[in-house]
Amino acid sequence: MPIKFYLNGEKEFPFISKYKSLTDILTDHELAALGDAYVNFVYSLTLSKKTGKPIGRKVSSSTLATALKKADLRRFLASRTDRHRQADAAEALIVFAWLLGTTSLEETLRIMEREETAEDAFSILLQTILKRINL
Amino acid sequence: MPIKFYLNGEKEFPFISKYKSLTDILTDHELAALGDAYVNFVYSLTLSKKTGKPIGRKVSSSTLATALKKADLRRFLASRTDRHRQADAAEALIVFAWLLGTTSLEETLRIMEREETAEDAFSILLQTILKRINL
Repeated sequence: MPIKFYLNGEKEFPFISKYKSLTDILTDHELAALGDAYVNFVYSLTLSKKTGKPIGRKVSSSTLATALKKADLRRFLASRTDRHRQADAAEALIVFAWLLGTTSLEETLRIMEREETAEDAFSILLQTILKRINL
Repeated sequence: MPIKFYLNGEKEFPFISKYKSLTDILTDHELAALGDAYVNFVYSLTLSKKTGKPIGRKVSSSTLATALKKADLRRFLASRTDRHRQADAAEALIVFAWLLGTTSLEETLRIMEREETAEDAFSILLQTILKRINL
């Protein structure tokens, strides 16, 4: 039997233990930078699945900012926060949940491929995460 | 027991069956675009693991072109192929192997985190893939 490796979780990425509140996560720009890579990959994969051909696409800040608002997460950020930073917040939370093992890549794809628009797909994903994490 | 979803494989991504040769894969620019998203995520994750803090970083074309040459894959491309297209070839093959289930994300991280440089990490990854796929 092959050895099972678990990629995510606090043992692999101990830095995820340092976040004590939702705002800690949403405002961490380094976490958002890692999240940007994850979100673009997940989105490209969703499009590839839906269209039946390989696609690589970046998610716009506008899409993620809209998804954040739809998921009712905008209220955790200061009112002056611009849309780029709102997108960062969405990216940070999405990768945090994956690193913690709250939402797997598999489930994320299942959630996202059901939705018509990217805004809805990321909004549903954010809502799913929010229901599960206790911060 | 939770239902186990398998994300990759020909059932999820039927388009991977269309590639009949290594050159088919290495020269597919759409596959390279999806690969770009995957490679940047895998690299960011490797750096995050190694440094113990979240990092998002793009892999340069130069790094991937060097890795392709080190893995002795350069010979499958036309001699006039520029370094940007050489990097595309590396990205296409890396994501193809993941889509097919040849190399998991878990194993990819294990392989990459052992190497000192990004060039070596991607070169070893490409060599591992090449040993396993029959094309």
